[in-house]
Amino acid sequence: MFARSEYRLRITACGAQCYDARARRPLPPLPGRHQTSNQFEVAMPAYRTPLRDMRFLLHDVYDFPGHYQRLEGVEPVDASLLDGILDEIARFTEQQLFPLNLSGDKTGCRLENGVVSTPDGFREAYEAFVAGGWTAVTGAQEWGGQGLPASVGMLVEELTMTTNLAWGMYPALSHGAMNALEIHGTDEQKDVYLRKLHAGTWTGTMCLTEPHCGSDVGLVRTRAEPEADGSYFITGTKIFISAGEHDLGENIVHLVLARLPGAPAGTKGISMFLVPKYLPEGDGIGARNGVSCASIEEKMGIHGNATCVLNFDGARGWLVGAENKGMRCMFTMMNAARLVVGLQGLGQIEAAYQGSAAYAMEREQMRALSGPVAPDRPADPIIVHPDIRRMLLTQKALAEGGRALGYYAGLQADIARNGVDADERALAQKQIDLLTPIVKGFLTEVALECTNHALQIYGGHGFIREHGIEQYVRDTRITLIYEGTTQIQALDLIGRKVLFDGGKTLTELIGQIAATCQELDGHGELGGFATELAALAKEWGELATDLGGRGMENPDEVGAAAVDFLMYSGYVLVGWCWLRMMQQALAATGEDDGFHAGKVHTGSFYFRRLLPRTRTLAATIRDRADALLALPAEAFAR
Amino acid sequence: MFARSEYRLRITACGAQCYDARARRPLPPLPGRHQTSNQFEVAMPAYRTPLRDMRFLLHDVYDFPGHYQRLEGVEPVDASLLDGILDEIARFTEQQLFPLNLSGDKTGCRLENGVVSTPDGFREAYEAFVAGGWTAVTGAQEWGGQGLPASVGMLVEELTMTTNLAWGMYPALSHGAMNALEIHGTDEQKDVYLRKLHAGTWTGTMCLTEPHCGSDVGLVRTRAEPEADGSYFITGTKIFISAGEHDLGENIVHLVLARLPGAPAGTKGISMFLVPKYLPEGDGIGARNGVSCASIEEKMGIHGNATCVLNFDGARGWLVGAENKGMRCMFTMMNAARLVVGLQGLGQIEAAYQGSAAYAMEREQMRALSGPVAPDRPADPIIVHPDIRRMLLTQKALAEGGRALGYYAGLQADIARNGVDADERALAQKQIDLLTPIVKGFLTEVALECTNHALQIYGGHGFIREHGIEQYVRDTRITLIYEGTTQIQALDLIGRKVLFDGGKTLTELIGQIAATCQELDGHGELGGFATELAALAKEWGELATDLGGRGMENPDEVGAAAVDFLMYSGYVLVGWCWLRMMQQALAATGEDDGFHAGKVHTGSFYFRRLLPRTRTLAATIRDRADALLALPAEAFAR
Repeated sequence: MFARSEYRLRITACGAQCYDARARRPLPPLPGRHQTSNQFEVAMPAYRTPLRDMRFLLHDVYDFPGHYQRLEGVEPVDASLLDGILDEIARFTEQQLFPLNLSGDKTGCRLENGVVSTPDGFREAYEAFVAGGWTAVTGAQEWGGQGLPASVGMLVEELTMTTNLAWGMYPALSHGAMNALEIHGTDEQKDVYLRKLHAGTWTGTMCLTEPHCGSDVGLVRTRAEPEADGSYFITGTKIFISAGEHDLGENIVHLVLARLPGAPAGTKGISMFLVPKYLPEGDGIGARNGVSCASIEEKMGIHGNATCVLNFDGARGWLVGAENKGMRCMFTMMNAARLVVGLQGLGQIEAAYQGSAAYAMEREQMRALSGPVAPDRPADPIIVHPDIRRMLLTQKALAEGGRALGYYAGLQADIARNGVDADERALAQKQIDLLTPIVKGFLTEVALECTNHALQIYGGHGFIREHGIEQYVRDTRITLIYEGTTQIQALDLIGRKVLFDGGKTLTELIGQIAATCQELDGHGELGGFATELAALAKEWGELATDLGGRGMENPDEVGAAAVDFLMYSGYVLVGWCWLRMMQQALAATGEDDGFHAGKVHTGSFYFRRLLPRTRTLAATIRDRADALLALPAEAFAR
Repeated sequence: MFARSEYRLRITACGAQCYDARARRPLPPLPGRHQTSNQFEVAMPAYRTPLRDMRFLLHDVYDFPGHYQRLEGVEPVDASLLDGILDEIARFTEQQLFPLNLSGDKTGCRLENGVVSTPDGFREAYEAFVAGGWTAVTGAQEWGGQGLPASVGMLVEELTMTTNLAWGMYPALSHGAMNALEIHGTDEQKDVYLRKLHAGTWTGTMCLTEPHCGSDVGLVRTRAEPEADGSYFITGTKIFISAGEHDLGENIVHLVLARLPGAPAGTKGISMFLVPKYLPEGDGIGARNGVSCASIEEKMGIHGNATCVLNFDGARGWLVGAENKGMRCMFTMMNAARLVVGLQGLGQIEAAYQGSAAYAMEREQMRALSGPVAPDRPADPIIVHPDIRRMLLTQKALAEGGRALGYYAGLQADIARNGVDADERALAQKQIDLLTPIVKGFLTEVALECTNHALQIYGGHGFIREHGIEQYVRDTRITLIYEGTTQIQALDLIGRKVLFDGGKTLTELIGQIAATCQELDGHGELGGFATELAALAKEWGELATDLGGRGMENPDEVGAAAVDFLMYSGYVLVGWCWLRMMQQALAATGEDDGFHAGKVHTGSFYFRRLLPRTRTLAATIRDRADALLALPAEAFAR
């Protein structure tokens, strides 16, 4: 266990900016202006860390400091340390990462003679990130990590992904590799590789996909031939390897899925190997290993992240975990990565929301339907128009509700890792397992909707690249695909997480929701919403039971409803989060600056305008699979 | 009126490929393969004209040839001529435009010394289009047009937009300019400009937007100073001018909104001016006029279309229509353009659908949930997975249903233009006015969803540019914005088209839907769907009445529900179209190849899985505007 003084993050303002529930943040300045190539002034996306919103959750709604006190090993994280960490990463991401987002998209990565250059400024930002001690926030002190709770790591990831998704992918991939090595690596592997990954001077990758296999990892063909010295020669081609080659660190640690000779077919014959770009030597690097970057992809988005084709030409590697148990190691990496991708969705919603809100307050077009609100101006700011409001509130409600869901998942991740007793840990693990596909699938799906709303608010200007809004749509698009598509998340949720344990974990969660609703049953302002949510939570369970029953007869019934079930789950959970936030906002006493009233309003928008989506979803979930499957495949051709 | 022999389109196969209801088109070949830079074989988007589907509508469902017989001036268009035209434009667009879609996106347009070069092949394709007589399909013979019905023009536009949206924009803009000049131009203007536009050697533009005004045309600042000779000097800057400068034709005819000295503020002081790039001289061009392209935009999509900033530096122009009546001229252009943008949405759905359907049949990942269907292969084609089916069927149902809606609008457009008596024409005009914002708004909104489904089916490969699928998402994105955003369409629909005439036109349309439903009431297979649709059609009217009532008290109530009302309208109308298609498919007798069964299945998917979206929409339409407007604007800032 750490003493407080042992946390070695470079927190310059630690303790100086403690949380004050009544602190009012000033309104943001008008969005930045710059001269475009066309010589017109246009609004650039504005961004500032949503600190007030984050603190409302961390302190008022969930009481993270109190929660840390009930865990083992993270008690030193009190309110002032948490706020200090938050302020520092907010400053770093706002000042160092956000300004590189648009330029990184424009420049992209370059591959020359096997060497990948990241966009200007990426390397310097990464060096600052390393120097600040941010690369292994949650890692064990033993290997050079900060030993902070999982939820603190999630805050860091949220803000890096909000300000610069392409850049944030580099440390995120390392994080996945660290997780896998921490749990499945040998002591020697940890001493050499985990230490370097924690320090951030070496980075990590996940090498799963091959040209013919994406979702279906069982089709992996890359081979691993054992050598006399206990190492393996790895041969094969991997594609879509994010951060597979770059200039940010000294070395890259690839975690590669491959097959041993004579391994069983499918996922039962997959093993994981550690394959460094340079072989370790002394405390540094030695000879170049037989892995090289053949090309980088031209993509729709995340241009600042190198998506590589990697050729393994008899590269030397070492087994991680047991033979043929690579899937287990992969899931360790993957589950953490899936939560991060959910945070990417959340981050893109937040960033795009802020840009479009600033634009809506500044751009003047037409009069309010109910008469001028800015009669001295030629037109009213477009934020007066109801549908602009609808699009803004959709983004705001899903950013804030999605954040509340993400932080709730963070609480469960903390308990699963640092809970005091084994039962509590096991229960939390079940919850985080259930929540992971929802956080990943739901938040990225709504992020696609929300970033498109932001673009729409900008109108024609949103379609122009220099204004930076369409980038959010393009960058977001990959989050619905990588680390398992929405479809894969949906099957994971209903299959492995809901039905596999007979609905036990889901029932437990529904019970918690019902308890919140019951508590608010008599409450004037929230009573109606609580009644509504209680009915939906009940229906959630019924839909699962119904699917379980139908799935016994025909598994396609489950597949045919899976994505809609995932979305339904997301809407109910975010509804729960909103109810809790509204409850907390109404309970806030004393002078108010409109923050709490804004919370209640945004929550009520969520209930009135977004939660009704469950009406359609319930109908389509209840429909039968023959609606999808009765048509012969050839009838899809023209 | 034309005699048949007077149609001068170059229809090489005219009459040779007459429609045969029992003709079976062979299944498409496997999608094309090419070597990528990464040396992996990947599927390129496959495309073939959906002729069978188009003919099913043109002949079986709507009987276009019979419909032409009941009109004035287009009777020579019989079944064989219609099929000949269709075959010819299908061949042209498949062979000449589709292959340029991906390359045009990659290359984009270049501006050098004020001259814009379109992508390789664009000019040659345009020359072939001109040579084939396709530039003025619906134009009057008097000015060199083909005199064909509006609906035939829509078929041509549908297929150009399906195969190459960026290219298709060039003739589409000309088409808008032709419409405006045909109705509002002087005889002299028609003789010089309309003739050249019809011939296609000169092209047209719509110059509306300025840096500070997009949706709000009333803010236009461009000035027009009258000269002694009756012409005007035009001064100002226009942005986002599609096809504003390019190398496809000899001259460009800009139709420019500007203000006369002392004109009233707002839309009542806008006039339209014709401003050619080169002044006409003899039968050709003379001196260069004072209009120049200052820059072209870097955009999210439609890279092959030049989106220009145009500077008018005292350019010479001529008034079109009356002084200060420019809005009326603009709407003539705009309404035709809005239908075309709806067809762009439809086209992108169709093209992306075909790509993803071909990929889903070829790509093998995992086993079907209910057991292997291709046991000799390492995995099953992904079309066996229910959610892949859901995404494919969503695209298919909206492509085919959207096409049926578009063609229905085409019928009304024909009657409005060529109907035998004035009442009939007036009624059809009302219908097309009502349908236009729905065709534009609904089809483009669902196109964004559908093209994203196509990308999702490709998985990670969909995010890579070379595979061509992500381009559909990017190209589609602008269709929700230009020629009036979805928000503008929605206000137009509920305000000008539904409430303005006291719901009369809507009631008429609902009556037609009710009649179809009643006809099918006793029909076994479709009876349930008919009952359901009848209830929705009734609810559609009730929602409009409710909004009308609430809007009298507070116009924001209408604005707050407008987009959801537009989407509701689209789902009901497409439901009606599907009911008619299913009815026709079930009535088809004789040997069947699965086409009619496929229609019935796809329609039933629409009713079971897509139409339930009206449940959410009805709830949000009925909600009150305070859900959107009660929050003070400053509460949107972080």
